[in-house]
Amino acid sequence: MNLSKVLIYGMGLMGGSLALSIRRKFPEAEITAVVRSEKSKSTILNKQLANFVFLQKEFLTPNWSNYDLVVFSTPVESILKIIPILPKSGNTIFIDLGSTKETTVTAVESYYGKETHHYISTHPMCGSEQAGPDAAIENLYVDKLCILTKPNSASDSSFEWVRNFWEKIGSWTIEMDSKSHDETLAYLSHLPHVVSTILVNVAGANFRTMKEVTAISKPITGGGFRDMSRIAGSNPEMWISIFKENKEFLSEAIDDFILQLTEFRNLLKSDQPFDENKMRSLWELALSNKEEIRKSK
Amino acid sequence: MNLSKVLIYGMGLMGGSLALSIRRKFPEAEITAVVRSEKSKSTILNKQLANFVFLQKEFLTPNWSNYDLVVFSTPVESILKIIPILPKSGNTIFIDLGSTKETTVTAVESYYGKETHHYISTHPMCGSEQAGPDAAIENLYVDKLCILTKPNSASDSSFEWVRNFWEKIGSWTIEMDSKSHDETLAYLSHLPHVVSTILVNVAGANFRTMKEVTAISKPITGGGFRDMSRIAGSNPEMWISIFKENKEFLSEAIDDFILQLTEFRNLLKSDQPFDENKMRSLWELALSNKEEIRKSK
Repeated sequence: MNLSKVLIYGMGLMGGSLALSIRRKFPEAEITAVVRSEKSKSTILNKQLANFVFLQKEFLTPNWSNYDLVVFSTPVESILKIIPILPKSGNTIFIDLGSTKETTVTAVESYYGKETHHYISTHPMCGSEQAGPDAAIENLYVDKLCILTKPNSASDSSFEWVRNFWEKIGSWTIEMDSKSHDETLAYLSHLPHVVSTILVNVAGANFRTMKEVTAISKPITGGGFRDMSRIAGSNPEMWISIFKENKEFLSEAIDDFILQLTEFRNLLKSDQPFDENKMRSLWELALSNKEEIRKSK
Repeated sequence: MNLSKVLIYGMGLMGGSLALSIRRKFPEAEITAVVRSEKSKSTILNKQLANFVFLQKEFLTPNWSNYDLVVFSTPVESILKIIPILPKSGNTIFIDLGSTKETTVTAVESYYGKETHHYISTHPMCGSEQAGPDAAIENLYVDKLCILTKPNSASDSSFEWVRNFWEKIGSWTIEMDSKSHDETLAYLSHLPHVVSTILVNVAGANFRTMKEVTAISKPITGGGFRDMSRIAGSNPEMWISIFKENKEFLSEAIDDFILQLTEFRNLLKSDQPFDENKMRSLWELALSNKEEIRKSK
């Protein structure tokens, strides 16, 4: 497959890592980046992540058709603002790397209506608690899952092109409709990020815990807390955008969580005999769910 | 310091790893193990974790005073049953590796009253989702924190001996009273284990999520879910025992968690404007709490 001109609109960790991957797999491709800050611009030039870098304010009337591929790697909110100015002709393929799909796909479908277009929404399932182009790494996408969502009226050949592109980058691909994507991700990604953040704040609000924590220079934590807090508080702008786009499914997932946690808490009531069998069955269920979801223990 | 005869009562991952550590740091020490199952007995003999191994049923009237050090490495419930048969004279030092302290220390204090004794309760903050003597590793305790709790009437010299023992094994030590220990651990260890388990079960109970999960052979999860689910469903017997011993503080921690999660959920209500500032401040707070608790980002 050919790729001679790529535009990466928004170049943080994800966009920057994609630039490095493209450099490796499509060494002929010329990469243009568009970013918001001077700082990102100079990082990108220093790391040679792109051949050309523009600030957003220098890139107000882009000629999208100059590129074979345009990658939107900004929060979904910004993508929603750009969709209505995309061209309705030409062969440029548009993809985004957004973590939610429903609002983007709805915007694409309402903009193009029944006209054939080349916008495919994609979600590479990777990332890091790091952010910014400085944290970009070449193999971020290798052996990771990339979910592809095909809006109505998107051309089949563009969809296949995008699938091949991600597979060439090194990712595994599957197709999901936008609603299934957003509900599934609410449970497997968005809820875990909320829970990690709340967990850290609950410990932080307990007086005795923080008294002991601040009394010594070593952490009073084992590997459990370390793992459970790794993603806490990371990338607030990105997550606020995700929560905004996916608030219905995320609310549903939180409600389910509160319900199950309340049921567990009721097992601890001191006026009741301790139901060990019930607790054991919750633990066994978790082990089998974990194995099924992670495809491993 | 000298150590010639050690009894490790209960030899799973923790006891077995301690045996390996003792072999390295006190090569002269003779180690006796007491276990419940024939399977553990043969693993211990095969891995040469102990010089002598008894089954519990062969060890009903032990002569505790034969040992310099007795280590209880069983669930707290079993330790509580043994405390009332410990000798009230002699120089044997007793320690346990229990994950909760309040019930054990109360039992020790009520048994010895005002008589000087040599029982020090300890909690090495390590472990693994693995269990059993087969999983024992020599450096499990190296560079980990070990919390020491001194019951009333315990001799100062025994306390110092135990501190030196753990430091020689390679751990960092701090002292905490039993209530502070149990409350702090409810927030930093027990709640995270509950939350991880519930998180996996909430995803497992969502129809669409599991439909997508079972449709492909690769996991639909990034590193976030993987980390957040690592400790889910592990060691049910150990955790049931911990929850039973620490149900008051754990209930308090769960209540705090439900309260904060409900507050977060209310920020997502569709009839209200999305309060980004509030959300951003929760994320910033989590980042600073995380740094303070883990002593690192």
